[in-house]
Amino acid sequence: MALALSLGRRGMGRVWPNPAVGCVLVRDGVVLGRGWTGDGGRPHAETIALSQAGNAKEATAYVTLEPCAHHGKTPPCAQALIDAGVARVVIATGDPDPRVAGKGIAMLGSAGIPVDIGCRKAEADLDHQGFFQKVTQQRPFLTLKLASTLDGRIATHQGHSQWITSAQSRRVVHAMRARHDAVMVGAGTVEADDPMLNVRGMGTVPQPVRIVLSGKLDLRNGLHIAATAREQPVWLFHRPDVDPLRWQNRGADTFAQDPKDLRAVMVALAESGITRVFCEGGGTLGASLLQAGLVDELVVFTAGCAIGADGTPSLQAIGVDTMDDAPRFVRTGIQAVGPDVLTCWRPATPKD
Amino acid sequence: MALALSLGRRGMGRVWPNPAVGCVLVRDGVVLGRGWTGDGGRPHAETIALSQAGNAKEATAYVTLEPCAHHGKTPPCAQALIDAGVARVVIATGDPDPRVAGKGIAMLGSAGIPVDIGCRKAEADLDHQGFFQKVTQQRPFLTLKLASTLDGRIATHQGHSQWITSAQSRRVVHAMRARHDAVMVGAGTVEADDPMLNVRGMGTVPQPVRIVLSGKLDLRNGLHIAATAREQPVWLFHRPDVDPLRWQNRGADTFAQDPKDLRAVMVALAESGITRVFCEGGGTLGASLLQAGLVDELVVFTAGCAIGADGTPSLQAIGVDTMDDAPRFVRTGIQAVGPDVLTCWRPATPKD
Repeated sequence: MALALSLGRRGMGRVWPNPAVGCVLVRDGVVLGRGWTGDGGRPHAETIALSQAGNAKEATAYVTLEPCAHHGKTPPCAQALIDAGVARVVIATGDPDPRVAGKGIAMLGSAGIPVDIGCRKAEADLDHQGFFQKVTQQRPFLTLKLASTLDGRIATHQGHSQWITSAQSRRVVHAMRARHDAVMVGAGTVEADDPMLNVRGMGTVPQPVRIVLSGKLDLRNGLHIAATAREQPVWLFHRPDVDPLRWQNRGADTFAQDPKDLRAVMVALAESGITRVFCEGGGTLGASLLQAGLVDELVVFTAGCAIGADGTPSLQAIGVDTMDDAPRFVRTGIQAVGPDVLTCWRPATPKD
Repeated sequence: MALALSLGRRGMGRVWPNPAVGCVLVRDGVVLGRGWTGDGGRPHAETIALSQAGNAKEATAYVTLEPCAHHGKTPPCAQALIDAGVARVVIATGDPDPRVAGKGIAMLGSAGIPVDIGCRKAEADLDHQGFFQKVTQQRPFLTLKLASTLDGRIATHQGHSQWITSAQSRRVVHAMRARHDAVMVGAGTVEADDPMLNVRGMGTVPQPVRIVLSGKLDLRNGLHIAATAREQPVWLFHRPDVDPLRWQNRGADTFAQDPKDLRAVMVALAESGITRVFCEGGGTLGASLLQAGLVDELVVFTAGCAIGADGTPSLQAIGVDTMDDAPRFVRTGIQAVGPDVLTCWRPATPKD
């Protein structure tokens, strides 16, 4: 299952709107086939592993998510495993998609195939969290990135910010972008930095959707994202009373959904198939996401320098009165990245 | 020498105004004696190791600092090593104190004892940095501690700050206090938190001097440091035009040196024998120390919570216009402390 999980992760950021699944077929201790969800969501991991194995009779199938039970654009994987004559199926976790939700397991059971469920479930649940949230909560998984000085600043009072973190950290950020379906920023960041928001230096990879929240859609002319909107998707969220035609003509997709309602933005993204969003700021958007309880993971890059209180803060005000009100996170990782420090955090369990 | 270094470190925070030295005597692969500078600076490491060995004839002495050559309150250690008949002396680094400065090595050489100098010099130089700076730059080594949220905040806009970092981090802070000669804070921190600034939960240890910078000396009544000034030293720095009698009557030592001139404060501390200062804030004092280039080490505790820009920043303004002006630090350590993260930094080499 460890191998299946690591294969499944290869699909992260590439397979939306589908889950990034991994599958391994084993017989007599020999791996017959390995598969992970193809780019764009098809073929499914099981299909690839079965086709690689050729003959999977009496094999054990390890799958990181319950095999699908419904005829979509591909026939159901549960049926494919039955037809292949596998002897046993080990599943990490169930699929909450109402079209599957136990039906895949039931289909295998009816065919007399023993099914084990729950092997490395916690890891699989984390890996599939974006897909699960899309299905059950109508919102994608959201990673908020902060990159700041030791004292939590992202620019000097003159707006100077190049470069706070190192080239090594920026490379890690590109790898993180590649593992998400979409990269999201506020209008202020686009105006200040004119970023490309693409994945660079990682070879040929599917590029994430670029989401920009701009209520007024009054972004200046000549931005990189405008010039490249036909090459890599740009999705703009704006107030319904603003005319998006200029941006549509440039090739961008526009959503008449005021970004002030971030939860509604998330619903629209989930409806469009997005499972994993990487938010790269700025401080106003980050603070609003925290306030709305929409941050599922925090990644914080800290550089060895200080700017002081007249610099721009990494997070704008979130209205915390006492420490009991402060959003709390549990540490999930610490590592050195070049001269910087990267720490990762998940929301603490809500207090009861 | 590794053993000698680790023994020497036991004296940190306990031996000022003297350096924290370690000494090991070895003959035929057997350790005959181990010593480190006694509390208050005497006896010296060599004296203790020689007395433990009894007979040190033909032994090799490993010392983390050049043995002293002058008659102070104790006879010179170089002479003691000669008298003991050691065969060889290995020294980590030289002593810049003008009363020693090569004379200890010369004395050993004249007696026909081979001397090796430079073994693990870099580590020894770091360990003795406070003593060296006191002797050569008339200022102690200064560690600045920051303890903040993920976004660099130390209190909510209502002044609420208990508890941002964990009990485990606070315990590490007590261990850090114990390794410094003095703990320093600004008047604002004393007023806001009324701290004891002592070492707790570490058994019976020499307590650090408590330094408070208060230009006007207008601290409110009933503070813990006032009530305990006769039990653990309190040193107050104030403007020369302010009358310190009230504090002297309480048992505090007072220095008519305006804390606005931090470099002069450091000179006064060095003249009083202090080699290592642990600064615990607040944000104004920390920023001023950074601006003055007086920070020799930064220790940053980061808790897994966020307060946002309306909270109190960990560092007040330091007047950084562009990133080139920002004080830069090199990472020397990363570790998890309970739920928090501790990172340690040293100033980057000045650009040339």
